[in-house]
Amino acid sequence: MAPEIPKEQWAQVIDKTGGEITYKKIPVGKPGPDEVLVNIKYSGVCHTDLHAWQGDWPLATKMPLVGGHEGAGVVVARGELVKDVEIGDHVGVKWLNGSCLACDFCQESDEPLCPKAQLSGYTVDGTFQQYCIGKAAHVARIPKDLPLDAIAPVLCAGITVYKGLKESGAKPGQWVAIVGAGGGLGSLAQQYAKAMGLRIIGIDTGDEKKELCLNSLGSEKFVDFAKSSNVVKDVQAATPDGLGPHAVLLVAVSEKPFQQAAEYVRPRGTVVCIGLPAGAYLKAPIFESVVKMISIKGSYVGNRKDSAEAIDFFARGLINAPFQTVGLSELNMVYDKMRKGAIAGRYVLDTSK
Amino acid sequence: MAPEIPKEQWAQVIDKTGGEITYKKIPVGKPGPDEVLVNIKYSGVCHTDLHAWQGDWPLATKMPLVGGHEGAGVVVARGELVKDVEIGDHVGVKWLNGSCLACDFCQESDEPLCPKAQLSGYTVDGTFQQYCIGKAAHVARIPKDLPLDAIAPVLCAGITVYKGLKESGAKPGQWVAIVGAGGGLGSLAQQYAKAMGLRIIGIDTGDEKKELCLNSLGSEKFVDFAKSSNVVKDVQAATPDGLGPHAVLLVAVSEKPFQQAAEYVRPRGTVVCIGLPAGAYLKAPIFESVVKMISIKGSYVGNRKDSAEAIDFFARGLINAPFQTVGLSELNMVYDKMRKGAIAGRYVLDTSK
Amino acid sequence: MAPEIPKEQWAQVIDKTGGEITYKKIPVGKPGPDEVLVNIKYSGVCHTDLHAWQGDWPLATKMPLVGGHEGAGVVVARGELVKDVEIGDHVGVKWLNGSCLACDFCQESDEPLCPKAQLSGYTVDGTFQQYCIGKAAHVARIPKDLPLDAIAPVLCAGITVYKGLKESGAKPGQWVAIVGAGGGLGSLAQQYAKAMGLRIIGIDTGDEKKELCLNSLGSEKFVDFAKSSNVVKDVQAATPDGLGPHAVLLVAVSEKPFQQAAEYVRPRGTVVCIGLPAGAYLKAPIFESVVKMISIKGSYVGNRKDSAEAIDFFARGLINAPFQTVGLSELNMVYDKMRKGAIAGRYVLDTSK
Amino acid sequence: MAPEIPKEQWAQVIDKTGGEITYKKIPVGKPGPDEVLVNIKYSGVCHTDLHAWQGDWPLATKMPLVGGHEGAGVVVARGELVKDVEIGDHVGVKWLNGSCLACDFCQESDEPLCPKAQLSGYTVDGTFQQYCIGKAAHVARIPKDLPLDAIAPVLCAGITVYKGLKESGAKPGQWVAIVGAGGGLGSLAQQYAKAMGLRIIGIDTGDEKKELCLNSLGSEKFVDFAKSSNVVKDVQAATPDGLGPHAVLLVAVSEKPFQQAAEYVRPRGTVVCIGLPAGAYLKAPIFESVVKMISIKGSYVGNRKDSAEAIDFFARGLINAPFQTVGLSELNMVYDKMRKGAIAGRYVLDTSK
Repeated sequence: MAPEIPKEQWAQVIDKTGGEITYKKIPVGKPGPDEVLVNIKYSGVCHTDLHAWQGDWPLATKMPLVGGHEGAGVVVARGELVKDVEIGDHVGVKWLNGSCLACDFCQESDEPLCPKAQLSGYTVDGTFQQYCIGKAAHVARIPKDLPLDAIAPVLCAGITVYKGLKESGAKPGQWVAIVGAGGGLGSLAQQYAKAMGLRIIGIDTGDEKKELCLNSLGSEKFVDFAKSSNVVKDVQAATPDGLGPHAVLLVAVSEKPFQQAAEYVRPRGTVVCIGLPAGAYLKAPIFESVVKMISIKGSYVGNRKDSAEAIDFFARGLINAPFQTVGLSELNMVYDKMRKGAIAGRYVLDTSK
Repeated sequence: MAPEIPKEQWAQVIDKTGGEITYKKIPVGKPGPDEVLVNIKYSGVCHTDLHAWQGDWPLATKMPLVGGHEGAGVVVARGELVKDVEIGDHVGVKWLNGSCLACDFCQESDEPLCPKAQLSGYTVDGTFQQYCIGKAAHVARIPKDLPLDAIAPVLCAGITVYKGLKESGAKPGQWVAIVGAGGGLGSLAQQYAKAMGLRIIGIDTGDEKKELCLNSLGSEKFVDFAKSSNVVKDVQAATPDGLGPHAVLLVAVSEKPFQQAAEYVRPRGTVVCIGLPAGAYLKAPIFESVVKMISIKGSYVGNRKDSAEAIDFFARGLINAPFQTVGLSELNMVYDKMRKGAIAGRYVLDTSK
Repeated sequence: MAPEIPKEQWAQVIDKTGGEITYKKIPVGKPGPDEVLVNIKYSGVCHTDLHAWQGDWPLATKMPLVGGHEGAGVVVARGELVKDVEIGDHVGVKWLNGSCLACDFCQESDEPLCPKAQLSGYTVDGTFQQYCIGKAAHVARIPKDLPLDAIAPVLCAGITVYKGLKESGAKPGQWVAIVGAGGGLGSLAQQYAKAMGLRIIGIDTGDEKKELCLNSLGSEKFVDFAKSSNVVKDVQAATPDGLGPHAVLLVAVSEKPFQQAAEYVRPRGTVVCIGLPAGAYLKAPIFESVVKMISIKGSYVGNRKDSAEAIDFFARGLINAPFQTVGLSELNMVYDKMRKGAIAGRYVLDTSK
Repeated sequence: MAPEIPKEQWAQVIDKTGGEITYKKIPVGKPGPDEVLVNIKYSGVCHTDLHAWQGDWPLATKMPLVGGHEGAGVVVARGELVKDVEIGDHVGVKWLNGSCLACDFCQESDEPLCPKAQLSGYTVDGTFQQYCIGKAAHVARIPKDLPLDAIAPVLCAGITVYKGLKESGAKPGQWVAIVGAGGGLGSLAQQYAKAMGLRIIGIDTGDEKKELCLNSLGSEKFVDFAKSSNVVKDVQAATPDGLGPHAVLLVAVSEKPFQQAAEYVRPRGTVVCIGLPAGAYLKAPIFESVVKMISIKGSYVGNRKDSAEAIDFFARGLINAPFQTVGLSELNMVYDKMRKGAIAGRYVLDTSK
């Protein structure tokens, strides 16, 4: 029997960039022929949601806008063309809500680069509502035995760091330095890196983060960038042969680490940039970069295959993303804390409250 | 019958960094167990030789020094361990005179990254002499039917651009932009790119270079960076779908093109840096680099396999590197012209004069 | 103004496997939301069409069936979801009419492996009719300046051999042996290989084919398997160092060449199988395969990206596929010749006759 | 102070193929300029040693011959060219005693394919003696804190299976089936696969092996090929989506599993052959191999880099290769057991007894 779908639902709505965010009732949408309607149970809150609201990225948002792009829920309706998602299936609505599936980039599995990509909570309404529409070919499949609250943060943060690790080209047994290891992305990155057979140098600051990285998250070595008198030397010394890590994953949001990484990465190594510090620049000395033959790469969000793999690692119990749950109605409180930098771990919104 | 080897020979000797270069007689060396003695017939002159003499690179040179690293000649003696190079074989002495063949990098065919690499005309005596020593495992094999003067410039410039093209990852049918297309490296790069099935956008300035690139060297499109009001737009427009070239090869020696390349390269594309502008920096906006998922790579000289392949393309008649020949005794004249930027094509020294 | 679409059209219809093929009028279909209706102008005839009719492959066909999968034509209608194909666009309907675009294989650009793939002229009606339906995301885009008759055979044969060459991993400057070089697939394979910068050893029999391969199609060497007393030795001797070709492309339809290829391919080389001899087996001695570290791969049809690339090489004038044109009504005559092995080059059907 | 080197030493000497093996005193050799003399402390015994003695492989052996190619010991002398191995270093002498380091294959890090490769205990004297000569560039570096007896079997068996797993292309999180999982190679393969982040289906027979694979060696699933009524179906069912493992590693020495593997491997998957059943053939149906686009690859021993990596995994405590130690003098007893198939785990010879 098909689930009953209400006409109206609760949502958090932004009416204009930077304006008030209102928790109110809005109509429930109807999926197109190639779409599904998902009853979102939980949605993570990501820094990107803050950018969408503030409008400080060089990319326009839809208005009015329902934000959110880490939603986990249950399919309640589907369009006529949808054959391989069933009513009742558990799915995730991700940043990449849809893409054309036909352009040069989609043809090569680079859906995130699709010029017509639809972005949840940015160019189409997202997951800060009870019923969200997603393209059937793009919703992430979630096994039914997984908790929908715990998996929410994996749907953006987890996939993104996993993709970055894949892009690094680091192979089992090789070393990867994770810059910003103790933060939300960094914590996930360490766990994925370990599950992939990599060896980890955590780079961050503070004894608490050091403990966490070395004892719980998978780092074998830790460099405190604030205490180190020579970060480049210390990171290189952390590898057995002193030549530095094969890859560096930059999840920090300040500019300086981006420039040191090119110096301490191993010859032929790869520096992968994930974090998006506003207005920042990559910078590396040409002579050294050439004679060391290093690569510097940008890595954006994962494609659908990366997403499925990242969820699979989570399903196997290898990834633990700490979170706390509050009601969807409390989004403004979460944003307040986020702006103050007062969040450890992820906030997950329960859409029923 | 073994060739007669004189006790003394003519050479161009630098006694101290930046000091006078003397054309004089010096003793002929004796190859070690794993080395060969090569009667250099011709040697190309490269900008790097000027750097070695001026000492303005962050890498110390041997002193006194015989420069040169594009030497082509005939093997006249070999050490006891040498089994697969015969007396009479034609070989090339390249920038990479030798490497340890056992370190982590040599084990992965990255001999140019060997920390113990010996550099011809820099850390060991080079090819501006009549008899030069080279490690047997490193001398390039030259088929006997090839002219030793014409191949000399291929031994450094040719191999370097070919390597850069390989590193770019561009595949047959894809587009590569070559920045500095009309110069010495750029001319060779175009010919190699064409032989590899790539499509070329030449970037340089001046109608003469434009003609040359479009009519003789293989470019299908040309962007004059001095005349263009928007280089980024024009380069992207040069590709059929307007998304820009899959790869960019930077052989220019100024800093600015390095920064534009990151902007016009296609999403998922690769910018390869070969030129070594002194004290210059790679710089790219992080936001755009990440969401476009581009790669920026340094490419140094080729390894032995790259060298053999680059020579093979030359042997097939696909590469034509214009040069003019003068006597070894005239090296100072060549350096004078080089400092004045007054060289078109390559100078090749005839060691018999 | 939208083109007028008739209610009825001419088609070649198979009513039961192996039964009569009737040239008659049938209704014109209506595209679904994600489909386009294509006015087929020309359709190539491929051996696979014969298999579809005979039903001798281990894969069931739709019945009644309109065969054909090399159709080139003009879009005359499209479904509501179709945004990036315009009425009037020139497109090709290929073997892969559609795929789910969401399964594990589609997610990695391996649409040909999609378990729900729809095959033109096999599991859905194909191109031996005037108006054919295709999934919008799957029709091949054809530039309007290309002749629709000449491109028809490229849509299957061309794409398939191009894909095989990509799968071989052979790089510009390396050698590939093409077994069955003088046939339809082999002729195309040589031209693609040459455009990709590869060097070619044609393997086939007869002086006429030898001439053709060496003088027109791109082979530098030719081995006549019927005249050679030792094919393995002769193929290896055709490469300069005698170690054999880096790759072998098997487009022949008999079993024996499949087994020789593993013997003459270079250590670390790759043997790619494309042809589908009925009931045949790959066979290779384990000891030699292991110590030579060779790979044997199957390559099926290309994906959408391969298709676009293969068409692009054709559009550049690098590929010339000889064909002769007859009316759609004459299909039975073509099959007769095909069964007798009396076809040189490709037959293309003009649907207006 | 340099170690004292005796003039004579104990060795196990084969005088003619299949003849008696004599435990006797022979002279200690002197290393050439690029070689080291290693005081072998322990040497593993491998099936290949039996083949060397029996002469049943299509590759001639040196005679008289000292067998053995899994030797771990201490460097006691070195040639004049050797700079990066010190007296006192711990090293391993492997199957690949040396290679030319200059041919096409050595240039691409495929030393095992070098036509001039020297094979320990086969074409040069091996490790069944107290003092063995090895090429300095080829001896494996062993950290001094590792036990020389335990590492001996890793030097051949460990490296070989690790190489096979690398060649399979399987990535962290993907499934690999290991055929012959419960044997010596299979046990090591499971441990390496797990350390590389792979998921394992063990294939073998018997409840004891099943227990071992599932509880100690890393398999998540087990298929008993003797009990299964349909091995192909059961192996595919062992993967969550029923499409089969991404890779298959064949370490068994009978022919049949080689043919099943091509059937149950996932589309686009890879079957890697390592075992060398005498006179056996790979065999796979062409139609299915092509439409599934599978690869079948031979994998021989590892190169120097693979060896260093395999040792590194062992050094990290992730690999446990069960062995028992007897004196070098007892080699004949070991061969007796080996011929009877009565060995579980590896025998290691102590050269001091």
